[in-house]
Amino acid sequence: MPEHHPTAYDAVELIRAKRDGRVLTEAEIRWLIAAYTAGDIADEQMSALLMAVYFRGLDAAELHTWTEAMISSGERLDLGALRAPTVDKHSTGGVGDKVSLVLAPLVAACGAAVPQLSGRGLGHTGGTLDKLEAIPGWRAELPTAEMIAVLQDTGCVICAAGTGLAPADRRLYALRDVTGTVESIPLIASSIMSKKIAEGTAALVLDVKVGSGAFMTELPAARLLAQTMVTLGTEAGVRTAALLTGMDVPLGRAVGNAVEVEEAVATLRGEGPPDLVEVTLALAREMLALAGLDADPAAALADGRALDRYRRMIAAQGGDPDAALPRAAHVRTVTAAESGWLRRLDARAVGVAAWRLGAGRARKEDPVSAAAGVICLAKPGDRVEAGQPVLELRADEEPRFGRAVSALDGAIEVGDQPPTARPLVVERITA
Amino acid sequence: MPEHHPTAYDAVELIRAKRDGRVLTEAEIRWLIAAYTAGDIADEQMSALLMAVYFRGLDAAELHTWTEAMISSGERLDLGALRAPTVDKHSTGGVGDKVSLVLAPLVAACGAAVPQLSGRGLGHTGGTLDKLEAIPGWRAELPTAEMIAVLQDTGCVICAAGTGLAPADRRLYALRDVTGTVESIPLIASSIMSKKIAEGTAALVLDVKVGSGAFMTELPAARLLAQTMVTLGTEAGVRTAALLTGMDVPLGRAVGNAVEVEEAVATLRGEGPPDLVEVTLALAREMLALAGLDADPAAALADGRALDRYRRMIAAQGGDPDAALPRAAHVRTVTAAESGWLRRLDARAVGVAAWRLGAGRARKEDPVSAAAGVICLAKPGDRVEAGQPVLELRADEEPRFGRAVSALDGAIEVGDQPPTARPLVVERITA
Repeated sequence: MPEHHPTAYDAVELIRAKRDGRVLTEAEIRWLIAAYTAGDIADEQMSALLMAVYFRGLDAAELHTWTEAMISSGERLDLGALRAPTVDKHSTGGVGDKVSLVLAPLVAACGAAVPQLSGRGLGHTGGTLDKLEAIPGWRAELPTAEMIAVLQDTGCVICAAGTGLAPADRRLYALRDVTGTVESIPLIASSIMSKKIAEGTAALVLDVKVGSGAFMTELPAARLLAQTMVTLGTEAGVRTAALLTGMDVPLGRAVGNAVEVEEAVATLRGEGPPDLVEVTLALAREMLALAGLDADPAAALADGRALDRYRRMIAAQGGDPDAALPRAAHVRTVTAAESGWLRRLDARAVGVAAWRLGAGRARKEDPVSAAAGVICLAKPGDRVEAGQPVLELRADEEPRFGRAVSALDGAIEVGDQPPTARPLVVERITA
Repeated sequence: MPEHHPTAYDAVELIRAKRDGRVLTEAEIRWLIAAYTAGDIADEQMSALLMAVYFRGLDAAELHTWTEAMISSGERLDLGALRAPTVDKHSTGGVGDKVSLVLAPLVAACGAAVPQLSGRGLGHTGGTLDKLEAIPGWRAELPTAEMIAVLQDTGCVICAAGTGLAPADRRLYALRDVTGTVESIPLIASSIMSKKIAEGTAALVLDVKVGSGAFMTELPAARLLAQTMVTLGTEAGVRTAALLTGMDVPLGRAVGNAVEVEEAVATLRGEGPPDLVEVTLALAREMLALAGLDADPAAALADGRALDRYRRMIAAQGGDPDAALPRAAHVRTVTAAESGWLRRLDARAVGVAAWRLGAGRARKEDPVSAAAGVICLAKPGDRVEAGQPVLELRADEEPRFGRAVSALDGAIEVGDQPPTARPLVVERITA
């Protein structure tokens, strides 16, 4: 006979309830997350529940509780002692997305404090920490006290989120990764927002990528994800806004780790590719508005203040901002098959190629190559001649090229007409 | 980089494929079942896949392969050396369903060999083995050689399915039980049919129960399950037919273990309740027709030949057919609240009451009480007076009564008009 403790629930009953479309109560969700974190619900039960959530969704109240329960599973940082207003940015992940490396010091140079707790790459999208680790000596893992000290001293910090923040999400994410339950808007939204809310930032701008190289390839799903996250942040007292930005083409020219650091530094020197500069400034303006700061980020980029902050931040975390970065031993180019306008350069294909060259990892525990990656020598809208190099591939090992090149099948489209220009900042979503 | 061995697959990719509605190939399904049985796919991955199957289903070809793969995970018995034609019966489970205890010896008495490999009860429906274990000395577990010897000598055997039959199903069923993935027609059909096909019977009759006390409460789902199983059996070369039989009311009067054995013996003595006799004879006629035997089961029941087979079968498995069965220490009655016609006696409520009295188990490893159960003193269609006992509850421990009685809230309905008679054998489904 099943005898229920008054404050406990039966995991199978709750799985069946969600499977059958019932809305779970606040107490049921809090119990589910706490019992899973405590090991009282088995992985095979939680993965079945997650798949039921994939199909049935979570309504607004369920999602709010789910996120709160994940935050409650760990500590919540208190950044209230900082002199500057705190504001952070989170990107849902794209190809060539090195925005954080430019944006954090830029917004800090404008007077905000940017506590950029970041992750590593998985699959074809890179991770900010992997990129910065291409810099000799740079440390991603900082104790909380040191993280706050760097933030206080330089106005920005980019480091790994501590294991104490939303540990339930850490376990859930690892489980989702191996059980085909990643691609669920409520699960994505609660995963991102539980960590960002626990991090203690007062304001947050979300860069929700949409396009072939993004997690969300279609606009309606990207919009729903953005709205869902803005609502969760606002409910938790974090001033939150989102930009939907295009990800059909790699952002900038470099895709990889060291190559993206080099491009970020060039951008901080005022020599950045126009698309990267445009997205970075748009996000900076949103962050400064939410932080209540009246400053011109374009000026801070142009006059070297942002670069100065970047150098101080890298040095504070043990990195040498002047060190030479690793270079790949092997280089190969992919050329245009015909002459004309470059109409399409598929972001996902380039991301997968960079991944196969060694820039990304298939499993969390895999190492990445600092030097591997892809350089886009031409971008859509450029004229190309038959035989002209369009992509430069870099790898530590020669055998990597075969599968990387095959990922690029059909990724480059040349035609008689230039492509229609598409706006990079597609939509702005606020509470 | 994910490198695929040519004959292997990525579990996450297959989970996502099924989740997204793709039909899995024969090779993919064979790999999934084999890899899970070998421990190469984790429980949390298989449970996510099973939940995706719950939502997306399996088409006819997928289900055929899935079932074949489960059969191939173990041995397949060869009953070809028996002199008599083999025919078995499987019930999807109901309340008071002691049909097997009467049917197996009855059909054996008519000239067939009945290899009735059975299971134990879980939840509110009882298990044939639990019932027979109320008989002192009776053994459910027989080595294959002994099982075949009993079958050869007495024409029937009721015993536990060996662990060598469809071991993949054994693991999958245990997983489904704790992950809310039991209630899926393709998963139920493949689970039942993989064991029955592996058992080696040449013919099979399915008793698919429909109604409040059954797994399938609605006719369309029961019909679909029956059709699915008949197709699977026929494809595997087993002559298969199904009867849909009503399960809104307990079958017969006794619900439990020893009490059901007593009612089965009374039925074999020609003193059975009419509903139990009707269902048993209908199933016997189907079995004999599939076995190609021209015999009258009503005669074999009336003249004691079936009872004689039963006694020989029980004795062959160590049981004493004349032994007194355990009696419950405590008895309580539930009475009619008003006078009139008994219109409804809810099968599920009575099943849950018997379960809570100790007749059933919540977990596979729990013991059951031989003596506990419920006797239906009146059945729908009977006249009852206010205060007249309708149910007799039996338990080994007094405290069991409280929750058992509460399960019966609203289960007894008395009205001014007699209930409309509903056919017990609702539908017949053949290949």
